[in-house]
Amino acid sequence: MLPIPVMKKAQKELLNWNGLGTSVMEVSHRSPEFKKLAKQADQDLRELMSIPDNYHVLFMHGGGRAQFAAIVNNFLGNNGKALYLTSGQWSQSAVDEATRLVGVDSVDSIDVTETNCVSATKSILIPDFKDSNEDYRYLHYCPNETVDGIEIFDEINSPWPIIADMSSNILSRQIDVSRYAVIYAGAQKNIGPSGLSIVIVRSDMLELPNLPQASIYNYKMQVESDSMFNTPPTFAWYLAAEVFKWLKQNGGVLRIEDQNNKKAELLYACIDSSSLYINDVAFDNRSSMNVTFKLTNESLETEFVEQAKNAGLVALKGHRLVGGMRASIYNAMPLEGVQALTEFMDKFAEDNC
Amino acid sequence: MLPIPVMKKAQKELLNWNGLGTSVMEVSHRSPEFKKLAKQADQDLRELMSIPDNYHVLFMHGGGRAQFAAIVNNFLGNNGKALYLTSGQWSQSAVDEATRLVGVDSVDSIDVTETNCVSATKSILIPDFKDSNEDYRYLHYCPNETVDGIEIFDEINSPWPIIADMSSNILSRQIDVSRYAVIYAGAQKNIGPSGLSIVIVRSDMLELPNLPQASIYNYKMQVESDSMFNTPPTFAWYLAAEVFKWLKQNGGVLRIEDQNNKKAELLYACIDSSSLYINDVAFDNRSSMNVTFKLTNESLETEFVEQAKNAGLVALKGHRLVGGMRASIYNAMPLEGVQALTEFMDKFAEDNC
Repeated sequence: MLPIPVMKKAQKELLNWNGLGTSVMEVSHRSPEFKKLAKQADQDLRELMSIPDNYHVLFMHGGGRAQFAAIVNNFLGNNGKALYLTSGQWSQSAVDEATRLVGVDSVDSIDVTETNCVSATKSILIPDFKDSNEDYRYLHYCPNETVDGIEIFDEINSPWPIIADMSSNILSRQIDVSRYAVIYAGAQKNIGPSGLSIVIVRSDMLELPNLPQASIYNYKMQVESDSMFNTPPTFAWYLAAEVFKWLKQNGGVLRIEDQNNKKAELLYACIDSSSLYINDVAFDNRSSMNVTFKLTNESLETEFVEQAKNAGLVALKGHRLVGGMRASIYNAMPLEGVQALTEFMDKFAEDNC
Repeated sequence: MLPIPVMKKAQKELLNWNGLGTSVMEVSHRSPEFKKLAKQADQDLRELMSIPDNYHVLFMHGGGRAQFAAIVNNFLGNNGKALYLTSGQWSQSAVDEATRLVGVDSVDSIDVTETNCVSATKSILIPDFKDSNEDYRYLHYCPNETVDGIEIFDEINSPWPIIADMSSNILSRQIDVSRYAVIYAGAQKNIGPSGLSIVIVRSDMLELPNLPQASIYNYKMQVESDSMFNTPPTFAWYLAAEVFKWLKQNGGVLRIEDQNNKKAELLYACIDSSSLYINDVAFDNRSSMNVTFKLTNESLETEFVEQAKNAGLVALKGHRLVGGMRASIYNAMPLEGVQALTEFMDKFAEDNC
């Protein structure tokens, strides 16, 4: 979902961007107009996330999965080894990709979820690494798992550079960028359309030895050419720039965080107040972006999805790998959307109690 | 440049695609609606290019440069070796990328351009490979060089599988797909916006040994998951699908080829008829897509570009690497656009003779 004001602006100027009489898609990425857009997008993202000066911001093709490989290829040359924390489907997919590329001996992984045997809820427990003797090039984790509805809110302590896949929670709440060596995100949750990924990389990381890889994913080469070693996905970049402007005009990350908290609280309160709905994530790790839940009476799930759809509430079916329900309430989802959902859920619970 | 009817349709349905009340960008790539679009795009491209059944069509992230690397990574495992023909800037960039990935010993290249010492025009001369003892995995070439304005119209004979980078001339004229092992193209010339690349791969090629690479560019994995191993660039895919429909509605490749020939003939006739303009490519290899020319009085070039711009004729400056002028007259450029250009050029020549 993209913010409606952004989409309306994009629609208005689709055939005539910046008074050029042509679409932004049709303008050269090396034109002064597009370069200006790129510079503004960089500045706006830096301002929104308070990105320190020793970080580079890259706009690249592909999404999170493209970066799963790029992370490995940019940092694990000369037999480097990395540690991956797993907390759900996406962090596990990052491990799988790393293993395909450099083999199981170069990739250690630790499952940081644990299930409480009394409440049967899942929570996150990050080990203390301070006495570790391992020499990892980086520690990789995914702060928000879209499929599992689990989010890691606390900053992690690590003796190794921290790399975070923030595809699904970038710009959703304030974070301290200086605690990370690399932050990356596929655009298609909180930033723009699919086809764009953003990488925020601390400059010292560019000195780590590379593996051979497609040059378009070589961070150092892209830093040196302002993300234009190749023709970039210009329309997606443009939409991302518009989303950054929209966020700034609407009070920035602080304000959207507040709104995201309100949306999540409302939805979890609805789930917790009814015996028909159940969420199996511990309070401290309940995602603010992807709220997963099941119906205690499973036979009602098809009916639930059907009635919701008729009420204009779509895409509620959980990921095909885990089943159940999932409401994605990314930045662009207004509070009213969540209110409509909870009203429907309350009514459905009442009708079926 | 994209066809105006396609852009108008995209504008109209930008916030409400297929009556879903939402943008195609916001619809899941796994939804029935998007899968239908993907299937139709595959069928339409197959029809437009008469693609035989033993070829797969992939829709991937990135452009031509992404595929420079993917070609190497998909086919040059186990110390494979390849032959690259070079005829200009893009085919040379493909060699550079291959060399970065597998080293100079695995990449042979032959410059197939030659300059006539009398006329000073460049032409293409492909060697006869029939007695070669080399065991190349493939022969790579680029039939149309956008920067150099040189096009190879004849089909090539090769004892090795032929891979063609058709980024700038795919769908511009009829070709016999069965002569190629792989055809690939970045979308941003004749197909759609940047951020999408299309790969047409013969199924037996998928059995060649791979190198480790990002899974999103693994042809076999993408064939097995209908180009959806990862979230694809859905909006670019949608626009490509619309361009295919537009081509079909307008008589297909046969008709556009005829129109492209008319456009090119008109422009080259204008150049050849004036002593102010000069094109240095032999008749048989003059590109139908990118017409390069220089002003015999170089001091008039800035004035030419300036006056052209004032007449609404933009993007005429040649590539920064070669200078001069370049008119790109891809499929979406109507005959009237070329007529306006030649009228301007005739007038400019008259004013400055």
